[in-house]
Amino acid sequence: MNDLEIARQAQLRPITEIAKEAGIPVEYLKPYGNSIAKVSHKFYDVLKERPNGKLILVTAITPTSAGEGKTTTSIGLAMALNRIGKKTFVTLREPSLGPVMGIKGGAAGGGYAQVLPMEEINLHFTGDIHAVTTAHNLLSASIDAHIKFGNNLDIDSTQIFWPRAMDMNDRALRSIVVGLGGRSNGFPREDGFIITAASEVMAVLCLAKDISDLKERLGNIVLGLNKHGDFVRVRDLGVHGAMAAVLKDAIDPNLVQTIEGTPAFVHGGPFANIAHGTNSIIATKMALKLSDFVVTEAGFGADLGGEKFLDFVSPVGEFEPAVVVIVASIRALKLNGGADKKSLGSEDIAALKKGFENLKVHYENMRKYGVPVVVAINIFPDDTSGEKKLLGELCKENNIPYETSTVWKNGGKGGVALAERVVELSNTSNQFKPLISLDAPIEEKLKIITKEIYRAGSYTLEPKARKMLKVLKKQGFGDYPVIVAKTQYSISDDAKKLGAPSGYNFQIRDLTLSAGAGFVVAVSGDIMLMPGLPGNSNAQKIDIDENGEITGLF
Amino acid sequence: MNDLEIARQAQLRPITEIAKEAGIPVEYLKPYGNSIAKVSHKFYDVLKERPNGKLILVTAITPTSAGEGKTTTSIGLAMALNRIGKKTFVTLREPSLGPVMGIKGGAAGGGYAQVLPMEEINLHFTGDIHAVTTAHNLLSASIDAHIKFGNNLDIDSTQIFWPRAMDMNDRALRSIVVGLGGRSNGFPREDGFIITAASEVMAVLCLAKDISDLKERLGNIVLGLNKHGDFVRVRDLGVHGAMAAVLKDAIDPNLVQTIEGTPAFVHGGPFANIAHGTNSIIATKMALKLSDFVVTEAGFGADLGGEKFLDFVSPVGEFEPAVVVIVASIRALKLNGGADKKSLGSEDIAALKKGFENLKVHYENMRKYGVPVVVAINIFPDDTSGEKKLLGELCKENNIPYETSTVWKNGGKGGVALAERVVELSNTSNQFKPLISLDAPIEEKLKIITKEIYRAGSYTLEPKARKMLKVLKKQGFGDYPVIVAKTQYSISDDAKKLGAPSGYNFQIRDLTLSAGAGFVVAVSGDIMLMPGLPGNSNAQKIDIDENGEITGLF
Repeated sequence: MNDLEIARQAQLRPITEIAKEAGIPVEYLKPYGNSIAKVSHKFYDVLKERPNGKLILVTAITPTSAGEGKTTTSIGLAMALNRIGKKTFVTLREPSLGPVMGIKGGAAGGGYAQVLPMEEINLHFTGDIHAVTTAHNLLSASIDAHIKFGNNLDIDSTQIFWPRAMDMNDRALRSIVVGLGGRSNGFPREDGFIITAASEVMAVLCLAKDISDLKERLGNIVLGLNKHGDFVRVRDLGVHGAMAAVLKDAIDPNLVQTIEGTPAFVHGGPFANIAHGTNSIIATKMALKLSDFVVTEAGFGADLGGEKFLDFVSPVGEFEPAVVVIVASIRALKLNGGADKKSLGSEDIAALKKGFENLKVHYENMRKYGVPVVVAINIFPDDTSGEKKLLGELCKENNIPYETSTVWKNGGKGGVALAERVVELSNTSNQFKPLISLDAPIEEKLKIITKEIYRAGSYTLEPKARKMLKVLKKQGFGDYPVIVAKTQYSISDDAKKLGAPSGYNFQIRDLTLSAGAGFVVAVSGDIMLMPGLPGNSNAQKIDIDENGEITGLF
Repeated sequence: MNDLEIARQAQLRPITEIAKEAGIPVEYLKPYGNSIAKVSHKFYDVLKERPNGKLILVTAITPTSAGEGKTTTSIGLAMALNRIGKKTFVTLREPSLGPVMGIKGGAAGGGYAQVLPMEEINLHFTGDIHAVTTAHNLLSASIDAHIKFGNNLDIDSTQIFWPRAMDMNDRALRSIVVGLGGRSNGFPREDGFIITAASEVMAVLCLAKDISDLKERLGNIVLGLNKHGDFVRVRDLGVHGAMAAVLKDAIDPNLVQTIEGTPAFVHGGPFANIAHGTNSIIATKMALKLSDFVVTEAGFGADLGGEKFLDFVSPVGEFEPAVVVIVASIRALKLNGGADKKSLGSEDIAALKKGFENLKVHYENMRKYGVPVVVAINIFPDDTSGEKKLLGELCKENNIPYETSTVWKNGGKGGVALAERVVELSNTSNQFKPLISLDAPIEEKLKIITKEIYRAGSYTLEPKARKMLKVLKKQGFGDYPVIVAKTQYSISDDAKKLGAPSGYNFQIRDLTLSAGAGFVVAVSGDIMLMPGLPGNSNAQKIDIDENGEITGLF
């Protein structure tokens, strides 16, 4: 059975029941049909004096197209924790429609470890991403209208940082010229669309504590430079109130259930390169007040989402992760070790051994934060007993705690060993401390992260980045938090360097400011912020019959 | 009190109660919070053997910026019909976010004749328009991806008819070049964005009977020409199934209530120039089965939405309108008569007299369909007694039935006289017959409509239109239904010709094919399909406070 068939056989419980069991009173619920509800962010005010549950961060080795199963493992682990008597929530990012229509597919887990209803979650869900798109493009249109009608703010039309956004994989929109066709259409300028998940509005939504904080952050966004080289903010244009109004429902966490009835918040979906890569802080904070354990996930590998969660999201959200879980699959390790994608079905001891180096680096990196770490080996049907044995031995040799997980095939039952290990580790010594202090100078932050996490011997700022650093210092952002945008396919800045590269020079091409989200993005190489559709896309496979039953989603 | 304050004071009843009273069983309801629900389109199958209620079409004189109050009158009339003991539904189009953020504002009625909750309806509502945007742009992205990856269909990239779409007022996107930046971004070509309400997908959604019909229509859409000059359809590209899946909830009518608890379907919002300009056929058909009277509204003046409803929507939806209501306001008549917008507050007998000619033409036009017609004079606070007296006299002189309406100020009470007149007229002789036969040749259709409705002495096809007519005939569309896209500010093809122009030559610049919606659009002049934001936009006035209360919407 495929994911959709499994999903359809599941008996969904009314979301009102799930909410009641989770301790969410009905007056804070806004249902979207019988299986989805938004929970008012104001409910947190009622909860805030309660003690927090324990936060489990799920991250992964360097991702490959073979899939390591991070979302599936997060969902399965949460179900398993419930099975062993721990009241648990799972908090995840929302899928983006673009990849659903492209190659990647949905993001609601897989097999017997899914959040449901998967069709709704993978399509429009509660409309949060559409709201982000609208708020984003309202700002874009307002900038061009402002310049056309007098440009009182003296915006330099060649220095507009704010692109347009769409939740679609559409490469033709990456680089465009707008405003053609004569005076009534404005003025021609270069522009481009990014996918909505990469919008700063998405990052802002996921970091905002409440509506006031949301509006404040939206007002802080720097949209470009004026003709004197000073920052122009959204507040100067006066549309942050309307943008916040457009986001008024999007700020409320979405409650759904796993295939075993575990409560899940699936809320917000920022990229893990250009942004911080994890679901909304509001959802995780609320979940921590409602349960013993909260399992959450951060995007891409431990060098991207993991690092950002521990160095940035945790201080901002006042989180203290209890355990870090690094998900690895034998298939993905073999690809990391240089195996060919086509021969992943056959045993390849050498590639696995080589790929293990990647896991080792991520494990060591995560240990630097003072938190217990465990590796979850996500078992696939093709894994041979020789490979499983080797991987276990390698972990033991290197003193890496690990458990195998079969949640894809067996649901929560397949994650019980992992869950027990997580509970055990959560009771051991924990000296969580970010590697990077939030208020250190930008250069120092970059020095630590490139050395300690990316294992570079040195780093350089290219001229564009150096120039921007000067501007940032001049405008008072010299000690601002830093998010690194780099390839997700290597620990380094070069997608071709598999395994465990070290000692190289890490190059930073540009620095960009996300003053609403509250960080500077250090950009290494070309970061793709608008995916494209392939020649044969999922869109050509997805269908719906006369009864409204969808096929082809996965 | 402004509209938002009035809306906020209203006591909304649970939508489940409204549904129950309207006869909609709970198993067909999908709630979106407590005050909005989608009703499954499948519910119609249960109802289809029931007799229909009477359909009242609300249309208007030539619109001006002074406002004639069509939506307000529709809502008020429905409330008044309920007050006099007739079970009544009102069916309306959904507001588009672009105009909400621009100048025009929302579209949920006004004063004491509103549909509620107005903030939700005017912002994202149930996400239908976002779904249309997504389905539209999925096709756009698929076209460019298809051409990039081999172009098996031999699509001529200079002959792509399908633009991109966004629900925003953004003039900078009207005319753009996409695909810049090198090979990995596809190939450069001219393109443009239209506002989502103008998308053929919106027209298709509003005409589709069920999911099968929806998919069939989406598959029929002609996206452009191949290199041999033949039509390429969405079915050839194979993404109509995915587009229909994206629209699976959007096809279900949205149930809300008026300020007096009258049930209302607010569903779909196609333009009345490029498309047929009325809410979904599904919603109106369902409402007709559930009530004695259904009040529905069509966009722009009687020459656009009214004509299209009677000549196209009615045969397609199998509707037999019982009464046509033409809404006029003294302010708008004065503007139609040449008065200055700034002096509308003072009496202007001469301008009113002159503007009356416009009302007279629309009245005569609507009478040609064999249906009883009544004029609703929508009273504004500034109207003087002299003006009211004159307008009454002019109507009497010309044997035009009329009633004044004060629903904006007084709610349903202010529409009782109109409601009584409507009931009375609905019992008189009715020989409804479209002026234009759906299967007449395109030229003949154009001859009738330009003569009988637009009062032209002749019409000409410009070279581009003539050329396209040949293509259409060759491809078997020579007798296809026709929708005219022309200025809404005049009965003629020239926005500057106020009042009652006649005897002029009507010029048709182009013909475009909407093979999914099922009509050819005869385009006169330049039709604006993407509005722009003004220098001072509503977006700069809209705000939200820390409790989530929105201000500045109207």
